[in-house]
Amino acid sequence: MKTILILGAGLSASSLIRYLLENSTIYNWKLRIVDQDIEMVNRKIGGHPNGMALSFNALDANERRPEISAADLVISMLPARFHVKIARDCINFKTNLITPSYISAEMADLNEAAKDAGIVIMNEIGVDPGIDHMSAMKIIHAIQDKGGKVTSFKSFCGGLIAPESDDNPWNYKFTWNPRNVVLAGQGGASCFLDHKEYKYIPYNRLFSRLAKIDIAGYGSFEGYANRDSLSYRRTYGIDDVPTIYRGTLRRPDYCQAWNVFIELGMTDDSYKMENSETLTPRSFLNAYLPYHLSRSVEDKLKDFLREDRIHLFEKFEWLGLFEKDEPIGVHDASPAQMLEKILVDKWKLGKEDKDMLVMYHEFEYEFEEQNYSITASMVNIGEDQMYTSMANTVGLPVAIASKMILNGDLKTTGVTLPIQPEVYNPILEELESFDIRFVELETQLDCLITNKDIL
Amino acid sequence: MKTILILGAGLSASSLIRYLLENSTIYNWKLRIVDQDIEMVNRKIGGHPNGMALSFNALDANERRPEISAADLVISMLPARFHVKIARDCINFKTNLITPSYISAEMADLNEAAKDAGIVIMNEIGVDPGIDHMSAMKIIHAIQDKGGKVTSFKSFCGGLIAPESDDNPWNYKFTWNPRNVVLAGQGGASCFLDHKEYKYIPYNRLFSRLAKIDIAGYGSFEGYANRDSLSYRRTYGIDDVPTIYRGTLRRPDYCQAWNVFIELGMTDDSYKMENSETLTPRSFLNAYLPYHLSRSVEDKLKDFLREDRIHLFEKFEWLGLFEKDEPIGVHDASPAQMLEKILVDKWKLGKEDKDMLVMYHEFEYEFEEQNYSITASMVNIGEDQMYTSMANTVGLPVAIASKMILNGDLKTTGVTLPIQPEVYNPILEELESFDIRFVELETQLDCLITNKDIL
Repeated sequence: MKTILILGAGLSASSLIRYLLENSTIYNWKLRIVDQDIEMVNRKIGGHPNGMALSFNALDANERRPEISAADLVISMLPARFHVKIARDCINFKTNLITPSYISAEMADLNEAAKDAGIVIMNEIGVDPGIDHMSAMKIIHAIQDKGGKVTSFKSFCGGLIAPESDDNPWNYKFTWNPRNVVLAGQGGASCFLDHKEYKYIPYNRLFSRLAKIDIAGYGSFEGYANRDSLSYRRTYGIDDVPTIYRGTLRRPDYCQAWNVFIELGMTDDSYKMENSETLTPRSFLNAYLPYHLSRSVEDKLKDFLREDRIHLFEKFEWLGLFEKDEPIGVHDASPAQMLEKILVDKWKLGKEDKDMLVMYHEFEYEFEEQNYSITASMVNIGEDQMYTSMANTVGLPVAIASKMILNGDLKTTGVTLPIQPEVYNPILEELESFDIRFVELETQLDCLITNKDIL
Repeated sequence: MKTILILGAGLSASSLIRYLLENSTIYNWKLRIVDQDIEMVNRKIGGHPNGMALSFNALDANERRPEISAADLVISMLPARFHVKIARDCINFKTNLITPSYISAEMADLNEAAKDAGIVIMNEIGVDPGIDHMSAMKIIHAIQDKGGKVTSFKSFCGGLIAPESDDNPWNYKFTWNPRNVVLAGQGGASCFLDHKEYKYIPYNRLFSRLAKIDIAGYGSFEGYANRDSLSYRRTYGIDDVPTIYRGTLRRPDYCQAWNVFIELGMTDDSYKMENSETLTPRSFLNAYLPYHLSRSVEDKLKDFLREDRIHLFEKFEWLGLFEKDEPIGVHDASPAQMLEKILVDKWKLGKEDKDMLVMYHEFEYEFEEQNYSITASMVNIGEDQMYTSMANTVGLPVAIASKMILNGDLKTTGVTLPIQPEVYNPILEELESFDIRFVELETQLDCLITNKDIL
């Protein structure tokens, strides 16, 4: 019997736990699942005999080390900043480790030690990062294997609301950490490469310089640039690619409207507002609009939007930004915290709502003096509030990789991520059985027309 | 004979040194002037028998302490961050101190110790801060003394180029630290009060939400908001004033054009550009504009400016932003550093150029159920490259305060700034003899029309 230790059983662990429990009888696995909320763990185990809920503090080395020592595989679903501590223990006890998070510099430094210990520390194997790596590498390798050369790679991902649950004018609800959504894009310019030119987009234009995407059957999307696109050149082995761009997807007009918040200054997290606890949505908005003796806040926002953006007005109205009856009620709050409070109430997932994960890659490549384009799109819709698309797309690749490690099918050691065919091929194949599948379309390019020309 | 120790003899100390030397014979003063550049000090002393140039390192406590101990007054013209060390020594040796800089929290903490030592540490007595405090307090006290109530205070200051030297389309040259000009307004929203409403302007709109000012004989100006306006309520004893705003003046269209740099992202100092040493002005600009197969950088900037800002185009052309022959040549540079390098070459003061300091206050007050407005404007033009307006307006109030302290006419002790009538009245009066004078205009307001309605 093999023991899997799962640290952290929050939202994104639901599908992981279900998969591992469902396969535990065939493969002879035992799951020990640690979370401070033991009732939630027990709900997710659902009485399965191979699951055991534990409520110790995974951050306490004395409590966690005996468990890591006794396990065959550790899966850390903790916040990313804790992974390195776990990894050091795993190296000491020669226990394999999986995390869905980005490889930090500190984690990368453990590569040799992990190899010496003969273990694998597999990272970036959820979604963005994870499925994006695997699906992109599969296409890049196919192009390279036949002797082609990738000339452009653009890739987009978005956690959105499913069409059947899409019932507000923003076409958006929170399916992930609201604070990250409010602060998205802050902290420096977004950088990418376009025809060998380094391009920088500052925060104040990030949500207005958009890429347009259409996905058959799912309609239109707009993408804004992620902070870092450049590092993917090395990761994907396309160091000299002339164009590389990664972005985040939203439904049309979301970004343009969000940019209004940015322009107004309402997403700033760097200072506290005076008397924030007394501000109503209306007075919060009015703090970013000029004083006027007689014009209403509504009229002043319309002035600000000008004619070319006036169609966005209803989005702000729907958020209740003109309401003046009750304060938002956050003490000593930054504008970003005030805005988050307003949005959390309005963009809450309803009980029957389903989320949707959208991924879209666009490659261009040269082969035998011809240019080709390949698009690959994946749209996945969540099952319910427990097995969301986010939980499935994060948890299932982690779960499948777990199976491969425990079965001895994954032989890599060291600190790694899923960019080798022996890792991504079986995972992508099995993901299709969960309806996580990419639709690929290849075309020969006579002239360079793409459906994203605004970058 | 009394000894004045001057620490730092850079640009803003020229007029200070001249004044003190000219008065040294009458008042029996001896000046000891410390600067690493002893030749510059000797040029400023010009052979005057009462001036002595010293080149020790003022930051070395062992070198400076004997000098401070032997002096009757220390004037620190060092960068502001060094003042507190000097102040501690002055307290130990019971030597009076003057600095033109803002009172830091650390400096404020020395108030009791300075009082106990029986010395005055006079700060904020140059220009912005300095003359602005004195001229504003004089009017505020006059309003309050007759029983009036200040209802609005707006105040502007700008270091500009004199009309006779104003020969470029930006109507601006560097008369002060270029880096501060490039980074102006960064680091948080600007906050002010307008009719009791707290208003916040984020950096991305700071240079587009402008106040318009006209000064008879000097034409039009535009003001953008300073970061902090609110703290002046307490300093000036107008805690409940419904409107308070402080801003920086530029000539018309400067701000709108500067905002183009901000929108593009070219003032960002938070990251380094890839291969910055290879970038020409043209490729630097192009890094912030979208790729296009056939449109020129000129055309892309015109697209960006759109019709309503196309009149600004010549400003960018004049800066040489489209030049592609030579790299700007800064290694590992942030966008802000690249831009600064371009501007320093173009906005350099010519040998015959004169600078200009402009200050403008606008008060509104209630008295006996009537509303009144008082404007006070001051325009001062520099003499030459040594005795600039900046040097005169910073150095002369410091010099006059020095005379008052040495003559026993300034009896305050502790850490203070020039907001008491016994300090500001004689200084403002004497400044008039140097053509630093305010023109006041009082009007009764029937309706509230001001010449700044865009805030």
